[in-house]
Amino acid sequence: MTVYFSNEDQQFMQRALALAARGRWTTAPNPMVGCVIVKDGNVIGEGYHQRAGEGHAEVNAFNACTESAVGATLYVTLEPCSHFGKTPPCALKIIENGIKKVVIAMRDPNPLVAGKGIALLQQAGIEVAIGLLASQAEELNKGFLKRMRCGRPFVQLKMAMTIDGKTATASGESKWITGEQARAEVQDYRACAGAILSASGTVLVDDPLLNVRWQQLPPAVQQVYPESTIRQPVRVIMDSKHRIRPYHKLFGVESAVWLVGAEHKPRDLSAFPDFVEAIYLDPQQHQLSALMDELAQRQINILWIEAGSNLAGSLISAGLVDELIVYIAPKLLGDQARGLCHMPDLHHLADAPQWQLICHEVIGEDIKLIYRPKHLTEEKC
Amino acid sequence: MTVYFSNEDQQFMQRALALAARGRWTTAPNPMVGCVIVKDGNVIGEGYHQRAGEGHAEVNAFNACTESAVGATLYVTLEPCSHFGKTPPCALKIIENGIKKVVIAMRDPNPLVAGKGIALLQQAGIEVAIGLLASQAEELNKGFLKRMRCGRPFVQLKMAMTIDGKTATASGESKWITGEQARAEVQDYRACAGAILSASGTVLVDDPLLNVRWQQLPPAVQQVYPESTIRQPVRVIMDSKHRIRPYHKLFGVESAVWLVGAEHKPRDLSAFPDFVEAIYLDPQQHQLSALMDELAQRQINILWIEAGSNLAGSLISAGLVDELIVYIAPKLLGDQARGLCHMPDLHHLADAPQWQLICHEVIGEDIKLIYRPKHLTEEKC
Repeated sequence: MTVYFSNEDQQFMQRALALAARGRWTTAPNPMVGCVIVKDGNVIGEGYHQRAGEGHAEVNAFNACTESAVGATLYVTLEPCSHFGKTPPCALKIIENGIKKVVIAMRDPNPLVAGKGIALLQQAGIEVAIGLLASQAEELNKGFLKRMRCGRPFVQLKMAMTIDGKTATASGESKWITGEQARAEVQDYRACAGAILSASGTVLVDDPLLNVRWQQLPPAVQQVYPESTIRQPVRVIMDSKHRIRPYHKLFGVESAVWLVGAEHKPRDLSAFPDFVEAIYLDPQQHQLSALMDELAQRQINILWIEAGSNLAGSLISAGLVDELIVYIAPKLLGDQARGLCHMPDLHHLADAPQWQLICHEVIGEDIKLIYRPKHLTEEKC
Repeated sequence: MTVYFSNEDQQFMQRALALAARGRWTTAPNPMVGCVIVKDGNVIGEGYHQRAGEGHAEVNAFNACTESAVGATLYVTLEPCSHFGKTPPCALKIIENGIKKVVIAMRDPNPLVAGKGIALLQQAGIEVAIGLLASQAEELNKGFLKRMRCGRPFVQLKMAMTIDGKTATASGESKWITGEQARAEVQDYRACAGAILSASGTVLVDDPLLNVRWQQLPPAVQQVYPESTIRQPVRVIMDSKHRIRPYHKLFGVESAVWLVGAEHKPRDLSAFPDFVEAIYLDPQQHQLSALMDELAQRQINILWIEAGSNLAGSLISAGLVDELIVYIAPKLLGDQARGLCHMPDLHHLADAPQWQLICHEVIGEDIKLIYRPKHLTEEKC
């Protein structure tokens, strides 16, 4: 049955999506969800999910209602949950409140929900319409959805380069290729990610913090994401040779670090701070694929990668990157400088990984290009 | 004195600019010029310069007039000429026709004109207003203006690369990095240029024709630029070691080729076709700078460059490139593949040539970025 949505429906769902997006720095590992309750054409309550363990979008919207929601229409960006998690199921809350109609942007692929929320509502005689602005809702929760559907995080690989694809001079000088605005945006991307992945090589050379510096976030983000609520992504470092030492700056920031190695080489963490943990990957498996499985198990929705050309090349060659985020600075460094990704097994043009440009945007004096693998833009997983 | 232009003035000058642009494949070495004659708010005649030696824009507009131009206003994109060249001066023609007011987008820096056309008009009692849509007029004739002001052609360096700045696999495979639409656009750029520059290395490896193939022009261009009027750019090949041989495909196309060498090494052209000429550069001078001077002497307004990484790097390092036209294909080749430009003397980030992004446009599945040197966007020459 084809469902028709009115302009008004679109407008309320757009509002719900905008509300949902306010949670982008804090809801992980939960999805972002926004909710708008409408009666006689007027919004009587709205809300969004702010943080795992706290109220869901629907509950917050009911709590904000300025009048009884009996007979109202509820717009929500993701199927209401049907299970008792940290909070009671939202589908029941909707039924209890006497909602007449529920408009849902998309089904929740979470196996704990997956249609059960919709079934509960329908069984209670509530009219349910599904699919309004579904592609926007998909985009909003690409991390959560990838993890639910594929058991992998959504992997974003950041590259900051010159026009000729260089990330540093031959001697390694790389501060700074891109401009201030691009670097502020990178802080925002980090803040939205569940984890940041890098390799020991980068830690040894640059000794980075790999955290989110609130002061460096774009002013527009600072306005809606107060410093007091900041959530740091986990810093995940590939370090199979145990080259990372406790004196690296990484450990000066009190926030989780996971050091990744192989199962046959246990690591002594006694000299490291408490927030440091070791991840061991099965050496029989493809290491990076195994890492992605492990990170999804650990509820990482979005993995943000800032890496040198070896790790970048390996991730790309293994087909593990969902999104390339390329900042191009208006400079040229020449072909003796350092390249973007090392892919020694690629000999023919026909074998080159194919991408699709999905976004281009001027950021200060740089330009940002976002690519997704061609196969991924055709099928989701 | 500040000159105020009305919306109507803008509209007529915009029309004159659009007319002028129709000559972009054929007017060289002359500038493109468009002209609109307006009486009582109505266009009574319009025209543009089509080809050197043929009617100027003003003359064509007068010839097209549907009624007497006495008392009319004339809009023209470049100062009317004041000298007897292949045709009589347009300023006189304007006076003879009883035009009351002339609106000019910009002065002509050609030393044969340079204000003399305006002076002639003013002496005849005609009201003259200058500067309407001047920056668009500048952009239109960037080649002619660069040659007049600096004695150099406007140099466009084309680069077709992967996301990671690669132009070919390690083995040299480069067919095709970019897609069909980008390649059709390149044919259009070639068609607008006075000359195409390449190096013997490229000729030896790729054996290209370096001509304009009308069949490969974008359909929109084919509609306004008939095959019968096609003008081929001169093919200029850097070949100081005399490596180019008469059997190269270049010579299968009957259209000028200039082989560039040093003065101390004269070349025997007896085995080459008649349309081949040698250019000798003073070996005491910087070769590429001397070449630019020579090409401007030979009335080349726009020089289009398709070159390998050595010539590209040398041109960039010498500061001779006015515009980088970069096509980025949605592919990655890895850092063992061939790079964009060779600049062995560049060691520090602070010394990297600084550019400014002036245009970004999706072309098929590729993206085109246009850069100009930062200093050039601040001062013109």
